[in-house]
Amino acid sequence: MILNETESTFKLRFQSIKDGAGSHSPSVLTLKSLFPELDIKIDACFLSNPYATELFMKRFELDFSEIATIRQRLEYYPSQNSFIAEGIAHRIDIKPEHIFVGNGAIEIIQAVIQNFVKQKLLVILPTFSSFYEFAQDHLEVVYFTLLKEEDFYLDLDRLRNFIKYENPDSIVIINPNNPNGNYINSQDLLLFIEDHQHLKNIIIDESFIHFAYEDSDLKIKSLANHSSRFENLIIIKSMSKDFGIAGIRAGYSVMSPNRVKSLLKNGYLWNSNGLSEYFFSLYSEKEFNEEYESVRKKYIIETKVFIAFLSTIENIKVYPSMGNFVLIEIINGTKAIDLVVKLLKSYGIYTRNCDDKRGLIGEFVRIASRSYVENLKMIEAIKEVME
Amino acid sequence: MILNETESTFKLRFQSIKDGAGSHSPSVLTLKSLFPELDIKIDACFLSNPYATELFMKRFELDFSEIATIRQRLEYYPSQNSFIAEGIAHRIDIKPEHIFVGNGAIEIIQAVIQNFVKQKLLVILPTFSSFYEFAQDHLEVVYFTLLKEEDFYLDLDRLRNFIKYENPDSIVIINPNNPNGNYINSQDLLLFIEDHQHLKNIIIDESFIHFAYEDSDLKIKSLANHSSRFENLIIIKSMSKDFGIAGIRAGYSVMSPNRVKSLLKNGYLWNSNGLSEYFFSLYSEKEFNEEYESVRKKYIIETKVFIAFLSTIENIKVYPSMGNFVLIEIINGTKAIDLVVKLLKSYGIYTRNCDDKRGLIGEFVRIASRSYVENLKMIEAIKEVME
Repeated sequence: MILNETESTFKLRFQSIKDGAGSHSPSVLTLKSLFPELDIKIDACFLSNPYATELFMKRFELDFSEIATIRQRLEYYPSQNSFIAEGIAHRIDIKPEHIFVGNGAIEIIQAVIQNFVKQKLLVILPTFSSFYEFAQDHLEVVYFTLLKEEDFYLDLDRLRNFIKYENPDSIVIINPNNPNGNYINSQDLLLFIEDHQHLKNIIIDESFIHFAYEDSDLKIKSLANHSSRFENLIIIKSMSKDFGIAGIRAGYSVMSPNRVKSLLKNGYLWNSNGLSEYFFSLYSEKEFNEEYESVRKKYIIETKVFIAFLSTIENIKVYPSMGNFVLIEIINGTKAIDLVVKLLKSYGIYTRNCDDKRGLIGEFVRIASRSYVENLKMIEAIKEVME
Repeated sequence: MILNETESTFKLRFQSIKDGAGSHSPSVLTLKSLFPELDIKIDACFLSNPYATELFMKRFELDFSEIATIRQRLEYYPSQNSFIAEGIAHRIDIKPEHIFVGNGAIEIIQAVIQNFVKQKLLVILPTFSSFYEFAQDHLEVVYFTLLKEEDFYLDLDRLRNFIKYENPDSIVIINPNNPNGNYINSQDLLLFIEDHQHLKNIIIDESFIHFAYEDSDLKIKSLANHSSRFENLIIIKSMSKDFGIAGIRAGYSVMSPNRVKSLLKNGYLWNSNGLSEYFFSLYSEKEFNEEYESVRKKYIIETKVFIAFLSTIENIKVYPSMGNFVLIEIINGTKAIDLVVKLLKSYGIYTRNCDDKRGLIGEFVRIASRSYVENLKMIEAIKEVME
């Protein structure tokens, strides 16, 4: 694959922006303001269910058809953390004192790592980089690396031995994992948690759990309702993936009441905003959730089809995923950055170059599943470029 | 003043809610959901310029007349902290590396106290309670109390002696102070800062600075542009007061680049939301600011008139204020809670009972200045109730 002159010029500028953004991709809004000429048609960097965003926006338009209604949400202080937790508690059938509401899951990751992890944190690579970047200087971080030869499958027996050897006080497991989508069966994970009650913290990031399933009903298999059994279990849940509302910043965590209390004792007073409070009020509404369930399942099925089509394309290897994204490896010598630049500049498709992902050796790109039509366009474009 | 039966019944329920909300008043949204029968006409608990909210909402309605435009703000990730800082830097004429953007000023208070204050924090009473509540167990907090006999004026010489005696590493000054509105002249404060360069942190909360003035042009006298001179100076700025957009959660801090870097190193990645990013884009716009300046001055003048009228009412004492609120003391034996309950239940006016404010001994109520018409209604009601 060869870049043309426009693509090569763009590549240089794009790379310098990416370097400035650290280990996260610049958002579409940032990109658009920096490259006004760029026509981004498909944002496959952004891991969200577009049908759920549509569902939410339809309801948003209805509820806020009067400017006075939205003014209320923007003008006044949002409710405090424990008040918003009650709605979420009702929805997921957990006692409210187990719930901590966050300004996005990212705030919860920061709060948990900086308040509860005391000495040594085990992180599984590849991962979402904030899990180790938010560790402050006094913490030691040890890495357990998933193997390419094993399709980045998480071997729990190997992990058990690693824990015995390294003796960390805390561990993070993203399930399904980001950026590869590997999923651990809920029963296996539960056994693992039972066997590791001597750890201070078992942090399970379930931000992508709405896209994983274990039966043909595509039922969500969250472990959140086990938080009353295990004092050391901390479940983190982003809402940006399921609902595609990253700009609203909504996330929550399920943990022991003592932990929630200790966080609220010294902070996190008004960390929700008027629109995240509104979002959570919908989230606890029966009718809205029934509609959501239907678009969740539709999207899962389309994602499976997307991944199946991608795996027929030559010169790339597609890794198994239960997320709403897929990790591909380029195996014909083309650089990941070149594929990303060509797709972005000439096709308007924004994908995630994984060059900066620790634990990935090779040319990897992460691609989110979008709408059915967008997925078809992506397959055509990648086929055209790679074959 | 005697409460009728309805008011007395309401008082019991209201007090139990207030106790649950800790040292902050429940928001109007929370109150409305708990007391649907309550007809709140004037929210004088909420410290904001209603004309600026109107200005903002007018622009909001214009910019987001198409649902697709607001969808962009809600769907995608907001830009990262340093990117949003650039717009603010441009507006207040400060280098961007000095600016840390917060999810409301409250997040900045938490970040500053928990990351920079190491041993002993001096807090001036009465104050905004989060300044001491967010101090974690390893911190010592010492209190310097403003005196009722001195109209809660901050005597800087007395403060200097107190600092020599107590030897704190950090101090918080809110200017104008909340809840009483006392203002320290910028030159005096600057001298104080110069003389206390041995302190680790001088935290100046300028959340109400847009309502204070020193000349007849009503010019804002912020000390933010001195952050390059003083390594230990930290300016905190809420946007909820000037613009009445508490639900959007927008605030920023001006501090040394080293401090900004150290905060961003381990967190605060996407702590803005799509609408706070939008707000800050307006904030850095010349035309919007010219319109804002005009409503800011209009509101200051009306606030002065409001306070003047209030001070003619019998049985209350009005303390001097350069904020957009005023602290009154009831001096005829009526309880503050009874005045607050009567105003809320029978007049639909929500004011702030200061019973829980440390450092205030007596019956104190804080009343925000609202629109001209609302201010007149409040004066009538308070006159009717108190005289």
